[in-house]
Amino acid sequence: MNSIIFLIDCPDRKGLVSSISTFFYELGFNIIHCQQYTDVQRNQYFMRLKLDMRTLQMSRKELEEKFSAFGATYKLNWSVHYSDYVQKVALLVTKAPHCLYDLLVRQQEGELQCEVPLIIGNHPTLEHIADKFRVPFYCLPVTPETRPQQEETMRKLLKQNHIDLVVLARYMQVLSKELVAEYAGRVINIHHAFLPAFQGASPYQQAYERGVKMIGATAHYANAELDEGPIIEQDVERVNHEQTIEELSRMGSDIERIVLARAVKAHLEHRIIVSGKRTIVFSTGV
Amino acid sequence: MNSIIFLIDCPDRKGLVSSISTFFYELGFNIIHCQQYTDVQRNQYFMRLKLDMRTLQMSRKELEEKFSAFGATYKLNWSVHYSDYVQKVALLVTKAPHCLYDLLVRQQEGELQCEVPLIIGNHPTLEHIADKFRVPFYCLPVTPETRPQQEETMRKLLKQNHIDLVVLARYMQVLSKELVAEYAGRVINIHHAFLPAFQGASPYQQAYERGVKMIGATAHYANAELDEGPIIEQDVERVNHEQTIEELSRMGSDIERIVLARAVKAHLEHRIIVSGKRTIVFSTGV
Amino acid sequence: MNSIIFLIDCPDRKGLVSSISTFFYELGFNIIHCQQYTDVQRNQYFMRLKLDMRTLQMSRKELEEKFSAFGATYKLNWSVHYSDYVQKVALLVTKAPHCLYDLLVRQQEGELQCEVPLIIGNHPTLEHIADKFRVPFYCLPVTPETRPQQEETMRKLLKQNHIDLVVLARYMQVLSKELVAEYAGRVINIHHAFLPAFQGASPYQQAYERGVKMIGATAHYANAELDEGPIIEQDVERVNHEQTIEELSRMGSDIERIVLARAVKAHLEHRIIVSGKRTIVFSTGV
Amino acid sequence: MNSIIFLIDCPDRKGLVSSISTFFYELGFNIIHCQQYTDVQRNQYFMRLKLDMRTLQMSRKELEEKFSAFGATYKLNWSVHYSDYVQKVALLVTKAPHCLYDLLVRQQEGELQCEVPLIIGNHPTLEHIADKFRVPFYCLPVTPETRPQQEETMRKLLKQNHIDLVVLARYMQVLSKELVAEYAGRVINIHHAFLPAFQGASPYQQAYERGVKMIGATAHYANAELDEGPIIEQDVERVNHEQTIEELSRMGSDIERIVLARAVKAHLEHRIIVSGKRTIVFSTGV
Repeated sequence: MNSIIFLIDCPDRKGLVSSISTFFYELGFNIIHCQQYTDVQRNQYFMRLKLDMRTLQMSRKELEEKFSAFGATYKLNWSVHYSDYVQKVALLVTKAPHCLYDLLVRQQEGELQCEVPLIIGNHPTLEHIADKFRVPFYCLPVTPETRPQQEETMRKLLKQNHIDLVVLARYMQVLSKELVAEYAGRVINIHHAFLPAFQGASPYQQAYERGVKMIGATAHYANAELDEGPIIEQDVERVNHEQTIEELSRMGSDIERIVLARAVKAHLEHRIIVSGKRTIVFSTGV
Repeated sequence: MNSIIFLIDCPDRKGLVSSISTFFYELGFNIIHCQQYTDVQRNQYFMRLKLDMRTLQMSRKELEEKFSAFGATYKLNWSVHYSDYVQKVALLVTKAPHCLYDLLVRQQEGELQCEVPLIIGNHPTLEHIADKFRVPFYCLPVTPETRPQQEETMRKLLKQNHIDLVVLARYMQVLSKELVAEYAGRVINIHHAFLPAFQGASPYQQAYERGVKMIGATAHYANAELDEGPIIEQDVERVNHEQTIEELSRMGSDIERIVLARAVKAHLEHRIIVSGKRTIVFSTGV
Repeated sequence: MNSIIFLIDCPDRKGLVSSISTFFYELGFNIIHCQQYTDVQRNQYFMRLKLDMRTLQMSRKELEEKFSAFGATYKLNWSVHYSDYVQKVALLVTKAPHCLYDLLVRQQEGELQCEVPLIIGNHPTLEHIADKFRVPFYCLPVTPETRPQQEETMRKLLKQNHIDLVVLARYMQVLSKELVAEYAGRVINIHHAFLPAFQGASPYQQAYERGVKMIGATAHYANAELDEGPIIEQDVERVNHEQTIEELSRMGSDIERIVLARAVKAHLEHRIIVSGKRTIVFSTGV
Repeated sequence: MNSIIFLIDCPDRKGLVSSISTFFYELGFNIIHCQQYTDVQRNQYFMRLKLDMRTLQMSRKELEEKFSAFGATYKLNWSVHYSDYVQKVALLVTKAPHCLYDLLVRQQEGELQCEVPLIIGNHPTLEHIADKFRVPFYCLPVTPETRPQQEETMRKLLKQNHIDLVVLARYMQVLSKELVAEYAGRVINIHHAFLPAFQGASPYQQAYERGVKMIGATAHYANAELDEGPIIEQDVERVNHEQTIEELSRMGSDIERIVLARAVKAHLEHRIIVSGKRTIVFSTGV
C-alpha cells in the first residue's frame, strides 16, 4: 500500500494534534499512523504522519500548496514524501567489504526500498562486489593534492544519477564542507566506534589500548565536523581481555553493518527528523 | 506536574485522532502526550492521552460523563487515571528477597509512585526486610488443605487496605481463579524464565539441562492459566557452559528484579493496555 | 601461524592439567592456548589445547599414536585437528536468502576458514546467489514421497565432495534420522526462535500471538528429535507491540544470520565439545 | 568448599602451564580451576589457579615460601588469597542511594562475600540506609579547604577497620593521589557513563546533548587520573530521543548498580589482574 509521509516540526502549542489531524481528516485522508514527540526542554513539537495514498483526492501539487498555506499559520517546518518515489542511493567505499555487501544484499532482497545506481571507491578493491550485483563501479583515487578534482568528479556523478542519499559505507575519506553542505541531511556515515568515544582514526586500536569491555559502532549524518554529526543509531557488543585488535575489528564489522543498515532504512522510510545535534527517530510501526 | 491519562481502545476507523484530540481541545485541555497504535491484524485502535491537569476546567465527574457520552458513539473502551491518586500496592512473597528489596527501595526513593501498605508472605523468612522499611508484614502460611482459608484472609487484607495492584514478587504459590478474576489486570507476576520457555517449576534447572545460552525473566499479568497471562516485559542475559544452576539462579535474580520493576512502573504509570494475550506497552515519553 | 588443536574430555581426577600439559611439553610442543572446564555435576573434565604446529617434531600419525596410548590410561575421549586442513562445508537452503548470503560473504572474505564446494536447494529460488559466488548449485526438490530418493542423491553429493560439515541455512526440511546419524555432530541447523520456545513451524507467528517482548534465534546441532539438538549459540532482540509478524520475521533474519555464523565459526575453529544435550563452547581467545 | 587462589603473571615462555601445574600437583593439591590468558602483543602470561583448600598439606606460610622460591626462577608476579579470609569493604557515598542499597543488599544476602564495617558519606543524606542495615555511618563533610583533614580522618577510619577494598559508590569527590596510591588496585569507582565517552561531570546531560542512542556505566580502579583507571566492567542500555535527562539518569542508575556490583564481586573473588591500563577479568566458572 502506498503512503504519503509528512515530517513536521514547530514550536509547541496547544491544539496542534487536533489542528493537524483535522486538516487531513477534512481533506478526506485516512491517517495510517501518527507519531509525535515533544522536546520539553526546547519546547519543540515533532510529528510524523503517514497517510493512505489511496485517499488522496487532489494532485500532489495541490496538497502541498494547501498544506503550505496551513503550515504557515503554525510556523511549521515540514517535508512530504511519497512512497512510490524510489530514492537513489550512492555507496562510497574504500577497502572494507562488509558494509557494501550488506547494503547491496538488503537492497536486492527488497528490505531497503531504493535503487543503487552507482558505487564509488577510492580504491579498486571492491569492484568485484559491484560486479556481482551488476552495479556500476567508479574508481576515483584520491590524494591530498587531487582531492578537489576527485570530489568534483564525484559531485558530477551524484548529480547525473539524481542521487538522493549518499552512504559512506566505510569510506575512509573526509568529504569537503562544501559537498557535505550540498547534501546536508543526506549523507550517512558509519563510524566504527561508540561515539563520542574513540573519534578519529584506528578506533579499535584505541579501544584495545583503553581496555574497554564493550565495542560499538555509530551511524550519523555527516556534517562539517568529523564524527560530530547527529547520531542516528548505535549498538555495542560485549568483549573481554581475550580479543586482539584484529578480533575487535572483526566483531566490530558485524556491529557496523547492522547499525548502518538500520540507519539507512530509517532514512529511506522518512522516520528521522534532525533537531540540532540530536535526531528524532520514529519507530518502525505500521 | 499532575496529569490526567486516558487509555482508549476501539475498532479502527477514519478520523479517530482528529475526533478525540478535538474533543479534548474544545474542552480547553492541553495534550501533553498522545501515543497511538493500530493493530492492523485485528483492526483495533489504541490510544494513550496525557492531559495537563491544570487545564481541567470542570469536575472530574463531569469530564467522565462528557467523555462517556462521546465515547459511546465510537464504541470506545476507555479508562481514566489521575496522577494525584496514589495507588496502593500489595507485595506477596515467599523466601526469595531480591524482588522485594528492589521494589521497596524503588518505592522509597520515589521511582515507583505508589504506597505499599502491606507485605504478605507465606513464610516468615522476609519479615526482617519488611521491618527495615517499616511495612506491615502478614505471615499467612498455606498448605493445599488450608488454601481457601488462607486466601480468604488475604482477600480481606487486600480489601481493607484498598489495594489497587497485587505484585507476586516471587510468591511461589498459585492464586485461585476467583481471586485472579477479582483482580483481573491488577495482578503482576514475575516468572524466572523467558516465557513461553520453561514454564512451571525450577526453570533455571530446566535451562541448565537444556543447555541454553541465554537465560531470562518475564513479568506478566496473572490469569487463570499458570504462566500464560499477557506478557508485560522480558529481558535476558547471556550465559555459557560454565555457569552452574546456582549461578544461573543468581544471575537470573538480577534480571527478575529489573523486569518486574519495569512492569510495575509501566502499570503504575498507566502505560499498558491488554489486548487478548498481548499487551500494548506505551513508552515512557514525557 | 598453523596450529594443532586437541579437544579432550574425560572423568575428572587430580593431576589432569599437569599430566596432559607435561605430555606435550616433553614432546617439545609450545602450548599457545589451554582452556578447561569441569562439569562438577557430572564430574567430567573438558579441555581444548592449541599447540604451535611449528613445534611438532614428529609425523602426525606418530603424534596421534603417542597421544592415543597416553589417553588410554586416562580414559580420554579426544579428537585432534590441524589448522592447515581446510574443511569442506555444504550449505542446504530453501527460499530464504539471508543466511546463505551471509555465510558466502564471510567465507569469501576469509572470516570462515573453509571451502564451500556446493549448495543444495530444494527450490531453485536461490540459484542466482550461488551463481554470484560461483558455487555449484544442485536443485533437489522433495515431496514426502520422494524424500528417500532425494536424500540418497544428497548423500552422494556430500560424499563426492568430502563434506565435513552440513549447514542447514534455513533449509525448511527435516533430515532423516539415518542421515543425521551419519553426520552426527556435523550438521548445524538454525531455528528462527529462542529455543525451547516456539519449536516447530511459524515461530514468528507464534511469537506474535504470544505477545513476547523479545524474539531470538538458535543454532544447534541437528539430532534425531526436531529442534532438540545441543544448542551452540542463541541471541535475541527486543521487540514491542508495534511489530507485525512480517517485521518480526525481518528483524529475526538479522539475528538468525549472526547466530548461525557464530556457530559455524565456532565449529570450524574446533571450539565446541558436545556433552549430552549441552555444548561446551570455548571462547575465541588467541 | 574453601579454596586457595593464586593470581600469577609473568613473561610468556614455553612450559609454563606444565611447570606451574606440576608444582601444585606434586604438593598434593587438587586444582579446581585453572584459567589462563596470554597477551600476545606484550608477550605476557596470566594465570588464575583455584586449589581445593582441603588438599593443603602444610602451613600457609610454608606454601607461600615454597611458591616464592619456585616463582623467582620464572620471574612470576603473584599473589595468593584464601577464601576463608573475609575481606572488609568500606563504602563511600554522597547523596545517590541506589548503589549503596544494592551493595548492602547483596552483601547481606551472601552474594558479596565480605564485611562492610563502615560507610562514609560527605553528606548525611544516606545515613538512614546505613541505619537500616546497622552499619556505622561516618559523616565527613568536605570543602576544598578541608579536604586534607577530611581525608586524614578517612584514612584513619580505613586503617582502624582494616579495610581491604574501598568502593566509591557514587562518591562525588576525587581522592588525593596519595590515598589512591596507598590503596592502589583496591579502590573501585563507578562512573555514570560509558568511558571514555563523557568523562567528568554531568555525563547524562552530556549524553543527552550529544544525542547518543545508548547510555552506559563503567566500573574501574581509581588511579591518579580522574576516570582514567583500568576498566573492570561496563554495560549499556538503549535509549531514544524521548528520554529526558532525568529519565536517562534514572535508567542509568540501574546500569550503574549492576556494573558496580559485578566489578566488586569480581574483585572479591580474586578474578582480576591489572595489566597497565587493561584488566584481565577471569570468568566466574566453578
